[in-house]
Amino acid sequence: MLDRSSKISSNRGVGRDLTPLFAPDSVAILGASSDATKWGNWISAQALRMSDSRKVHLINRNGETILGQPALKSLAELDGPVDLVVVTVPARGFEAAIEDSLAAGARAIIGVTAGFAELGMDGRAVQERIVRRVRSAGAVLLGPNCLGVLDTSTSLTLTSNPLPPGRIALISQSGNMALEMSGLLKARGHGFSRFVSLGNQADLNAADVIGACVDHPDTDLIALFCEDFVDGRSFVDAATAAAEAGKPVLLLAVGGSEASIRGAQSHTGSLTSGSLVVDAACRAAGIYRAASPRQLADAAATLLSFGPRAVHRVGVIADGGGSAGMASDVVESAGLSVPKFADDVSDTLRTILPPSAGVTNPVDLIGSGEEGVAAFVPVLEAVLASPEIDSALITGFFGGYEEYGEQLGRAEIEAATSMARIIRKYGKPVLMHTMRPNSNASKIMESAGVPLFLAVDDAATTLSLLDRTSARRRLPSLPTMSANPIESADYWHARELLRGAGLTFPESRLVQDAAEAKKAAAAIGYPVVLKAMGLLHKSDLGGVALGLSTDGELTQALSRMTDSLSPPSFSVEAMADLREGIEIIVGVQRDPRFGPVAMVGLGGIYTEVLADVAFALAPLDADSARNLLEGLRASALLRGVRGKPAVDLNAAGAAIAAITQVAVLQPEINELEVNPLLVTPKGAIALDARIVLRGSGNESDC
Amino acid sequence: MLDRSSKISSNRGVGRDLTPLFAPDSVAILGASSDATKWGNWISAQALRMSDSRKVHLINRNGETILGQPALKSLAELDGPVDLVVVTVPARGFEAAIEDSLAAGARAIIGVTAGFAELGMDGRAVQERIVRRVRSAGAVLLGPNCLGVLDTSTSLTLTSNPLPPGRIALISQSGNMALEMSGLLKARGHGFSRFVSLGNQADLNAADVIGACVDHPDTDLIALFCEDFVDGRSFVDAATAAAEAGKPVLLLAVGGSEASIRGAQSHTGSLTSGSLVVDAACRAAGIYRAASPRQLADAAATLLSFGPRAVHRVGVIADGGGSAGMASDVVESAGLSVPKFADDVSDTLRTILPPSAGVTNPVDLIGSGEEGVAAFVPVLEAVLASPEIDSALITGFFGGYEEYGEQLGRAEIEAATSMARIIRKYGKPVLMHTMRPNSNASKIMESAGVPLFLAVDDAATTLSLLDRTSARRRLPSLPTMSANPIESADYWHARELLRGAGLTFPESRLVQDAAEAKKAAAAIGYPVVLKAMGLLHKSDLGGVALGLSTDGELTQALSRMTDSLSPPSFSVEAMADLREGIEIIVGVQRDPRFGPVAMVGLGGIYTEVLADVAFALAPLDADSARNLLEGLRASALLRGVRGKPAVDLNAAGAAIAAITQVAVLQPEINELEVNPLLVTPKGAIALDARIVLRGSGNESDC
Repeated sequence: MLDRSSKISSNRGVGRDLTPLFAPDSVAILGASSDATKWGNWISAQALRMSDSRKVHLINRNGETILGQPALKSLAELDGPVDLVVVTVPARGFEAAIEDSLAAGARAIIGVTAGFAELGMDGRAVQERIVRRVRSAGAVLLGPNCLGVLDTSTSLTLTSNPLPPGRIALISQSGNMALEMSGLLKARGHGFSRFVSLGNQADLNAADVIGACVDHPDTDLIALFCEDFVDGRSFVDAATAAAEAGKPVLLLAVGGSEASIRGAQSHTGSLTSGSLVVDAACRAAGIYRAASPRQLADAAATLLSFGPRAVHRVGVIADGGGSAGMASDVVESAGLSVPKFADDVSDTLRTILPPSAGVTNPVDLIGSGEEGVAAFVPVLEAVLASPEIDSALITGFFGGYEEYGEQLGRAEIEAATSMARIIRKYGKPVLMHTMRPNSNASKIMESAGVPLFLAVDDAATTLSLLDRTSARRRLPSLPTMSANPIESADYWHARELLRGAGLTFPESRLVQDAAEAKKAAAAIGYPVVLKAMGLLHKSDLGGVALGLSTDGELTQALSRMTDSLSPPSFSVEAMADLREGIEIIVGVQRDPRFGPVAMVGLGGIYTEVLADVAFALAPLDADSARNLLEGLRASALLRGVRGKPAVDLNAAGAAIAAITQVAVLQPEINELEVNPLLVTPKGAIALDARIVLRGSGNESDC
Repeated sequence: MLDRSSKISSNRGVGRDLTPLFAPDSVAILGASSDATKWGNWISAQALRMSDSRKVHLINRNGETILGQPALKSLAELDGPVDLVVVTVPARGFEAAIEDSLAAGARAIIGVTAGFAELGMDGRAVQERIVRRVRSAGAVLLGPNCLGVLDTSTSLTLTSNPLPPGRIALISQSGNMALEMSGLLKARGHGFSRFVSLGNQADLNAADVIGACVDHPDTDLIALFCEDFVDGRSFVDAATAAAEAGKPVLLLAVGGSEASIRGAQSHTGSLTSGSLVVDAACRAAGIYRAASPRQLADAAATLLSFGPRAVHRVGVIADGGGSAGMASDVVESAGLSVPKFADDVSDTLRTILPPSAGVTNPVDLIGSGEEGVAAFVPVLEAVLASPEIDSALITGFFGGYEEYGEQLGRAEIEAATSMARIIRKYGKPVLMHTMRPNSNASKIMESAGVPLFLAVDDAATTLSLLDRTSARRRLPSLPTMSANPIESADYWHARELLRGAGLTFPESRLVQDAAEAKKAAAAIGYPVVLKAMGLLHKSDLGGVALGLSTDGELTQALSRMTDSLSPPSFSVEAMADLREGIEIIVGVQRDPRFGPVAMVGLGGIYTEVLADVAFALAPLDADSARNLLEGLRASALLRGVRGKPAVDLNAAGAAIAAITQVAVLQPEINELEVNPLLVTPKGAIALDARIVLRGSGNESDC
């Protein structure tokens, strides 16, 4: 396997120049074929369509005529350099093909050929050798095991299927997912600025390709399917830069189930990061994470129409109680709000609608529906004008009234036309569920940018996906080496390291024997805690004795530990009163792709029974740490329940931030845990700490 | 408002004869119209289509010619009795029209006319008067405010739109929902045995109509949209009978959000039961509850193909790693399992597929896809043959291979044909996600009963919906009066009532003063608890003193309570050791529609902070009660964590069952709560009890 640490920072902030990949002056297909079941044929057919805009050379070792074009026998026959070579030869000839390509002056190579890292360690070794060769020649390699590249802004068509031009850059590590996402986006009337098949990401990875789209004037939105994030921090940086440039990044990723992780092990040679870690990366970068191709396409369509805007407080407009209730239920169950309207909004609606109508949100136009399709117009305006409403969902029979005769059909078209004008005026996202997406009125709404949904569930899911994305934050660069590497990871060193970073611990003395222990206890004051040093899991082994109240109890505990554990030394500590606060657990683990990831949770049974924990990329500042804690399901406990006072959340945030900072500044730390961190109304105090250094044999991934 | 108690049991088990509604010999449309914007016109047009099979009379007070047919001026002009009258006249003429219909011999009346209970109390009073009149005449009324009835098995078409014949009975309280459900089911190739629009359910309600479908030979499945369950227990009985007859009932209901409840208040005059209570009713009756019209249609299609079968352990078959991972993620995130295959299944797959394929579940056919479409066949057979797999999901590009040429197209058709045979052989549910639902191969799969999904999310949701439905249980009839009504609901009476039902309480004495209290404490043994009697919320008022260890502490507490609360008497009780067990909360509340509903939860912060509670229709037997408890999110606590032993779940189940039994046998109890019920490794002991009688001014709904 590749050295993980070198992967994490290799491309950070580099922004590789991919002009030879997206805008080559000349292209050669190495392995062009006249066999209509082969990639070398399909790509050649597409490539020949761009002969007007650039030189296209077909290379086939037999020099046969392909698709009506004469082929050369080798790249050596070219009379000048070629910018880009697509390699589709069998795996056994791939390495030689790379050499030939570089010799022919290629600055970009697309490896369609499969049979490398995705087959195991041998393939990975060959792949790594090839990457070194390509990089040393100053070229870039896409793939291998990829399906090609397409750039409609430069008329580059180097993949098996054409795609319509448009504003979306589609990047995918899976052929099926690319087909499905593109099919769904096309069905919504959208096209593509670029398509990039990532393959094994041996050289170029998702971060590089996203980076190349940030300044691409024809790209408005980036849609990505990714299995392996390779260089996770560069990925986050590139996505953050895209979001800052006003180009939303939507991500589809697998790895959310045991089964998909099991599956990924036999696919593309990928290492799947934990899904919660990927979520943390998405939150850091402001990425919209979709759970399926349809979710991605629906959200992309909405973002292309309305941009990244607030959607949380939804106004529901229906022409029937069943539709109104159904839409309200699915919207709230998706985590959004359908709030009661302000009184003035309801008053306005009352002047528009008959007395039986619902005017509090959801709006139910009942009684005005069939005769009053026109009522949709002032209702929509009243809803969008409300400062307490972020977005609107139209649901029910609108789009279908034309079935009830010419007169209603005309009224419906007029209503749609007026609504389109109102939607443009307010700019707030408006989504529409309709049973008749192909009617005249529906088409008018769609042309106004309103995404249409055949199922109201999808509209709710889309709003939810747009709502879940939080503010991005720029992450600092990660040091790859410590200024002061840790020599020992034992408890006492961990404690001192964290104290140095500003964390509070109970008063404590390091002692060697009973006499020193008693002296320490006298200075600290009973009750005390005794801990045996030099053990990673000291609690489990009986190396911690709590609530020792007398010299007798202390020496007895010390002698028992000496007998069973022979520790090199002991720590005598003041005993904190656990009833005064709430125990939380704070950990930082190093993900092989995304680097240090912080985890916080409520201690004890909350972590154990309810798995109530939250993740974020480290380091965290105090505010982000506090937010993470407040996002826990049981966070109400921290605000005080059953007569207990609220705890000091600012102190908790600062302590968590300090812990993550330590883990980041000492890259030799693979795992760092403070458990418990006791948070009281007056502050936060760490009662235990544990460090696992890299290579210590105790490593584990989040 | 109607008397709630009479509603709850009015139709229980009656099974009203709806022959005149579904198979009338003669029909009259009262309010037939030639105005093409009116219901009286639309229904007449449909009604005239059945003139071959029965007499159809159009009645219009002007006696004009309607749709080319002469109309009578009144029902009195008929020369014989009419079975069924459809009334579409304006609301002000409705009551007279009912009289005319009954006078003309009508045994069934369909009230299309709107403007009754859905507009408020005045309309409700008129509606109730009409219902009494209809019932006293021995007739039935559907509606008012309904859209008509259709029965394809008797060629009855009394609604505005025709529907294709088929096996589904569609019952709906909303026009839009009926249109949407029928549209989605039609798109899946299904038709309808019956369609019934419920309207205000003034006389006939959902239970009656379901009951009439249980023995209907042309109905295989019942699809229902309902806002008001009117007579909830009859509804559960009817749905249970349908399920027992092999006819799955699928329910779409609103009321899962504050917004939809707010909306329902201004619609159909309906009282929406809490969504968790509806869930409880669905579990009792084995009803499949859908959250949207699409969910309902997708699940209905799957049930019509495969019947109600286990689906939980899903085999995922894909032709690419991305598709395999995506499907696995959405399936597991929907609450199902994609388990690792038994070794022999993987061994078999290894003999079929190339070495790079995934053979552990998900199956990834990679490498055999384009050349080996045929591999889908033995793979599907190996998966379905596994006794550890309940269902299969095919995902990826299958159905699309014909796009890559004639040869692949032929292979794909052959594979689909063979798979159809295998699916019939095993009978296990097989679902397919495909980007190309209209291809030849996809159509073959669809003809074999395989539901096709354009989005893999929908396949997962469908499996989840089918998986969530638990075993139904026959509920006993509810008494409407107590054999021994409770005279007083104070603590001591509640305690004795529950003790009589078999619940254990700590040893206790009822005392009047300090002398009696000390005597009682001496007999029971310190520490004791002192409780002031005669208070509903005694804890909140300072009427409970825990852990009293001496005579002094006891008399001091007693004198304090006497001063502040002047209670009529006191209870002195043994103090239970809370550390020995886990506190749970058990309550029963009376829902206006579904009657007594049990609630169980873990006590204290688990109920308060996490809302970790579960509901079921009362009464519960001990096993069902235990299952309810074990279904709580934090139920791991009951099985013992952090060194604590497991508690006695059987004792907990028996105690919960006894509590629900008391609430059911005493219908004058509106609310009954035991909080806490302390469950220890050795049993269950009730530490407090509270009863609220109906009409006591302290009523509340779940």
